[in-house]
Amino acid sequence: MAPQPDTTVGGLGEFGLIRQITGRFAAGPGVLVGPGDDCAVVAAPDGRVAVTTDVLVEGVHFRLDWSSAVEVGRKAAAQSLADVAAMGARPTAIVVGLAAPATLPADWALGLSDGLAAECAVAGAYVVGGDVVRSDRVVVSVTALGDLAGRRPVLRSGAVPGDSVVVNGPLGRSAAGLALHLAGDAALLERFAPLAAAHRVPAPPYAAGPALADAGGTSLVDVSDGLLQDLGHVAEASGAVLEVDAGALEAYVTELAGCADALGADPWEWVLGGGEEHSLAGTAPAGAGLPPGTRVVGRVVAADGRAPGVVLRGRALPARLGWDHYAG
Amino acid sequence: MAPQPDTTVGGLGEFGLIRQITGRFAAGPGVLVGPGDDCAVVAAPDGRVAVTTDVLVEGVHFRLDWSSAVEVGRKAAAQSLADVAAMGARPTAIVVGLAAPATLPADWALGLSDGLAAECAVAGAYVVGGDVVRSDRVVVSVTALGDLAGRRPVLRSGAVPGDSVVVNGPLGRSAAGLALHLAGDAALLERFAPLAAAHRVPAPPYAAGPALADAGGTSLVDVSDGLLQDLGHVAEASGAVLEVDAGALEAYVTELAGCADALGADPWEWVLGGGEEHSLAGTAPAGAGLPPGTRVVGRVVAADGRAPGVVLRGRALPARLGWDHYAG
Repeated sequence: MAPQPDTTVGGLGEFGLIRQITGRFAAGPGVLVGPGDDCAVVAAPDGRVAVTTDVLVEGVHFRLDWSSAVEVGRKAAAQSLADVAAMGARPTAIVVGLAAPATLPADWALGLSDGLAAECAVAGAYVVGGDVVRSDRVVVSVTALGDLAGRRPVLRSGAVPGDSVVVNGPLGRSAAGLALHLAGDAALLERFAPLAAAHRVPAPPYAAGPALADAGGTSLVDVSDGLLQDLGHVAEASGAVLEVDAGALEAYVTELAGCADALGADPWEWVLGGGEEHSLAGTAPAGAGLPPGTRVVGRVVAADGRAPGVVLRGRALPARLGWDHYAG
Repeated sequence: MAPQPDTTVGGLGEFGLIRQITGRFAAGPGVLVGPGDDCAVVAAPDGRVAVTTDVLVEGVHFRLDWSSAVEVGRKAAAQSLADVAAMGARPTAIVVGLAAPATLPADWALGLSDGLAAECAVAGAYVVGGDVVRSDRVVVSVTALGDLAGRRPVLRSGAVPGDSVVVNGPLGRSAAGLALHLAGDAALLERFAPLAAAHRVPAPPYAAGPALADAGGTSLVDVSDGLLQDLGHVAEASGAVLEVDAGALEAYVTELAGCADALGADPWEWVLGGGEEHSLAGTAPAGAGLPPGTRVVGRVVAADGRAPGVVLRGRALPARLGWDHYAG
């Protein structure tokens, strides 16, 4: 009997794996040198490049028994690509580091690559390079580049009293999905499948980043740690108080009510504190023409001697909010 | 008695650690937005950006009992910055991902940051952003950006018959240092301290990358896997045969002879196959005016029906050469 081919990452070898992976990445108009050399070369027609990096660790940011390889790839790419959008930039390219055990099935690495490429396609970007190394645990690092196309970058520090607080994209869906996966009830996972999927693969509103910048947006972040916590970064950087109206968030809560009922959970915790959503939140001048899907959820007021921060109006804060990688 | 402050990464918390780390990074002229927002923004005056990423894993690429945190930071930065030089570009910025256990001393993370910043200073680049996440093992990912300043990128595929094969920077020193650390003899580590240090902190000849490009260099790589293996990538990409003269490498071997004698090792293995050196190797037209420190070590000849590859002239190949992350 012929020996079975070794279909693990280790069996394929570093160079064999890299060859198979890079064969899956499409070339794009702004990709001047693609994968396979010491560096990629990407067009930066604006004379500036926005750059951000994120790391995902198996067991912390994803679980191999919950997510397919394609889903992990999409989530890893989305996390960094959303940061680019949150500067008001258009994502152009990502480079990827993969640390993986030799025993990892090669198909998993290829699925990851397909997921990275698929999410890049949604955002208009390309996978242009990477590194593959040995490790006892799967770790994926994604660095994303973006083109500001002449725009000023939209920072966290630009909120001014009188601005509206705005959100583009859903809130609390990823947190609801995480709760569903943690509960592990197959019937509920099936019944609320779109929410479970929203945890495994977030859907950042990429185009809304540049659109909010063009609309005069004064500050912008992506919702990675939770709405109130991320708006808190804006408040601190801007030295202002952001008042969020609970009433303006009812629509997000209502959407999650059925799932929250089924799990005995508080949907307000998900909407106010749920991370990994990668929607966009920030501030814009009151009365500005906002891009489609943008909702006004509050206003910026002067700190007037108070500590900068976020205040929820019309409702008491839920007990548990936010996410610190070395707390909670 | 007052409780002792918790001086671990976990005790400081994600945001506390990020605040302390980013306080250590100097601002630079090309850094338009530094650490602390969703993205950094870096000048790309050339309208293109070179980008590369590398991942280092504790126990695979560095050992906490061999290397200080500063040394790990310098090595992690050097590895990516050398890839930028190997395109003929000048490094401008890096972003860094750190995955670390909550029990890691915060001082280690700060030392790593100092090392990253120090190596960037050598290369003329800046640390502009990063991510910190929880993991059971230390993993460091570094993505470096570079400016081609109007140059064509020097690819692996440009070697043509008649070119000289060239090297800039030392060879085999990192491999000798690795052998010293593996042997673990304190007296030898002391006697050959510069070689041991060369393993912990490589010294890529950053300026030689753009200089070789300006000299008309036709191909360029950094020596990360071993001279013959990395030149093999050039040979394959160029469809040519690279003949390397053993005689031209004697100087590198002689420098390592004392250490090799003491360890009972073959210094030719180190010079021909030693990785993680991050010197530059490639090809340039015969007779080109080469930058200081560049040595001609061979020539490019037509494949003429042979498989592209590297041939060593004047000496038999040592038995063990090269490095594959999922082999050897």
